[in-house]
Amino acid sequence: MTTTPPRTLLTEMFKAAVASAQPALCVPPHLPAPPKGRTVVVGAGKAAASMAKAVEDHWSGPLSGLVVTRYGHHVPCERIAVVEASHPVPDAAGENAARRILEIAGGLGPDDLMLCLISGGGSALLALPAPGITMADKQAVSKALLRSGANITEMNCVRKHLSAIKGGRLAAATQARVVSLVISDVPGDDLSVIASGPTVPDPTSYADALGVLEKYRIDPPKAVMDHLLAGRDESPKPGDPRLARTSTVLVATPQMALERAAEVARRAGITPVILGNALEGESREVALVHAGIVRQVAGHGQPAPKPCVLLSGGETTVTVRGQGRGGRNAEFLLALTVALDGLPNVHALAADTDGIDGTEDNAGALLSPDTLSRAAALGVSAKERLADNDGYSFFQALDDLLVTGPTLTNVNDFRAVLVL
Amino acid sequence: MTTTPPRTLLTEMFKAAVASAQPALCVPPHLPAPPKGRTVVVGAGKAAASMAKAVEDHWSGPLSGLVVTRYGHHVPCERIAVVEASHPVPDAAGENAARRILEIAGGLGPDDLMLCLISGGGSALLALPAPGITMADKQAVSKALLRSGANITEMNCVRKHLSAIKGGRLAAATQARVVSLVISDVPGDDLSVIASGPTVPDPTSYADALGVLEKYRIDPPKAVMDHLLAGRDESPKPGDPRLARTSTVLVATPQMALERAAEVARRAGITPVILGNALEGESREVALVHAGIVRQVAGHGQPAPKPCVLLSGGETTVTVRGQGRGGRNAEFLLALTVALDGLPNVHALAADTDGIDGTEDNAGALLSPDTLSRAAALGVSAKERLADNDGYSFFQALDDLLVTGPTLTNVNDFRAVLVL
Repeated sequence: MTTTPPRTLLTEMFKAAVASAQPALCVPPHLPAPPKGRTVVVGAGKAAASMAKAVEDHWSGPLSGLVVTRYGHHVPCERIAVVEASHPVPDAAGENAARRILEIAGGLGPDDLMLCLISGGGSALLALPAPGITMADKQAVSKALLRSGANITEMNCVRKHLSAIKGGRLAAATQARVVSLVISDVPGDDLSVIASGPTVPDPTSYADALGVLEKYRIDPPKAVMDHLLAGRDESPKPGDPRLARTSTVLVATPQMALERAAEVARRAGITPVILGNALEGESREVALVHAGIVRQVAGHGQPAPKPCVLLSGGETTVTVRGQGRGGRNAEFLLALTVALDGLPNVHALAADTDGIDGTEDNAGALLSPDTLSRAAALGVSAKERLADNDGYSFFQALDDLLVTGPTLTNVNDFRAVLVL
Repeated sequence: MTTTPPRTLLTEMFKAAVASAQPALCVPPHLPAPPKGRTVVVGAGKAAASMAKAVEDHWSGPLSGLVVTRYGHHVPCERIAVVEASHPVPDAAGENAARRILEIAGGLGPDDLMLCLISGGGSALLALPAPGITMADKQAVSKALLRSGANITEMNCVRKHLSAIKGGRLAAATQARVVSLVISDVPGDDLSVIASGPTVPDPTSYADALGVLEKYRIDPPKAVMDHLLAGRDESPKPGDPRLARTSTVLVATPQMALERAAEVARRAGITPVILGNALEGESREVALVHAGIVRQVAGHGQPAPKPCVLLSGGETTVTVRGQGRGGRNAEFLLALTVALDGLPNVHALAADTDGIDGTEDNAGALLSPDTLSRAAALGVSAKERLADNDGYSFFQALDDLLVTGPTLTNVNDFRAVLVL
């Protein structure tokens, strides 16, 4: 086994996971051959600007285009225009950008190439209501859907039928060859879900969208109902000839990030156990389950013998009841601290691969076997901090926050629990 | 791979798990050789009567004794008296039985054998306050400890120092050789925790107990404080000569039950993945984590390739918000139904090995890939039933409850999720 300190090893795993999704590293290997005609880059998402920069840095021929990213996620590009817009609630800047991108797509010919750079957040950043519908109409329906208990597939079905650009409409709007490079932050990497699939066929119909509204007894604004009933300009279905020259490549996914971290572990003589790339659940409860598995490893060498590392991705949730600070990763790790109760030989890291845990300035935090005792020595109670949803302050007091700054990419959360 | 129907296979795994803890099967192999003198049987716990019956059925020589079990858990014995008492709140019947058991222990000589049958629930069933303390005093302290955030080790430290029988005092009270046969339902199978360890050395002291009360600022009744300060009749410590002739055997544990189920899986060509024998957490959140792992198996063959079965034990919890019926296993399975959303090739069983899921008449329930669609066909919404904590009604409507009746043993919950 390795002699690398556990904390260094965990940090190396996290760095490897993030590196797997860094546009500068994951985009260039998937760039297509230059076309006979023009090449334009369009795109949307939190990683859109850094993906555009990666294209610029590795593209030999002429290049132009426009991508939209979140406020604060700007990266200077020379040939591709980068605009910033609001996320998660769309704003006029995003709507404007979406309109311009559709115009760009419409202006291309069969010899041209449209490179489409898609990443998480693209759905809100690339919001353009269908003709006759206002952004306010769309948002009213979105809110009603969120409250209704409709699942993500049902919500997307409706959204795609209220949009001028989603559900494959962007790809259908151009005569150019379309290559989409996608960084996934969604469970299952469903291409029609990531940024609502602007270049991917949409198997659902206007009738399906009406069915969802009826099922959940949602009474939409009149303009929305008129639009759905009119059923004009249906989204391209699988096999639609307008999408025949469209290809899509997943350049980074939560699974790839975990596999990269697993390689780091293996090289260090540690057995990686990938529990899931899309774990969900209340952070503190997910921590309890992790603690249970850790004890099984420690006591019975199951599901894998020591030394091993439990790896997982996906997005946990925090039901805020206290007044404290911290994102879901700090909360997970604080709950794990309490649950492990000082169990020896267990180290852990939990962090968001985008470098921002919730709304704080840390990516996540680190846990050691002595976390609880060091906290106690400082007069800090893990249980009390957990009751106050105050993971940030807890790990800050111990100087155990993991701070990376925004990574300008996102393949969701990363958790690694090392049992030596 | 096996051709056994998935549901039959899951049921066989559960049966094997329960069988591993059936006193009739797990007690006889561990019975010691008869002594020169008398043999008496004492004991407490939910399985005490069925354990006593197992001893009677396999003991050749003369036998007498007294065990105390929970109301409704009586099993007719011929030579061993069986009394019933209240659980989880102790009552006078239990106090009386504890006093008689101490008297029996005190009446034995060096040539005699005291067989001590211990199982979950024994702590409440064998409650006997130390001299000078009333049951009400003890309960006041117990309640304050539960509210204080003290951990189980700290609570047991105090409890053992307010008891006349716990913390090794029962074994210390006899000159006989003592053999304890224990069925564990606690995480980690800590012998000093199961039934508060009446025959196991207690490493904690009166000073420790006072320290716990001080740490959590608990102001106990005067009689309790007087007793702790007096510090008379300290519990036997590890190495205490009074416990030199005491031995303890774990005859059934959650881990043994899972291993037995794993054997059934292996014989059917299914890879068993034991996640933990003591998983904790809110049932519906534990289900979400299971769903995440299931999708990882289905999509990536991790942490094990298909076909495999995720096995776990331990006790989840339900925070009741609705008006529905059902225990934690029905709740887990209903949440898993919602989370899997009809995922094909996944079957599951969750049940309490004692045969009673919460306070209902079922042990648990079964899930199939078509659970959601069959429910929908009946007009039953899984999401609505989950919101109402109504797992029992949901699975009852589908005729998918698992009903075994009380098994008269308990190695906690059993969950098996089969991914084909």
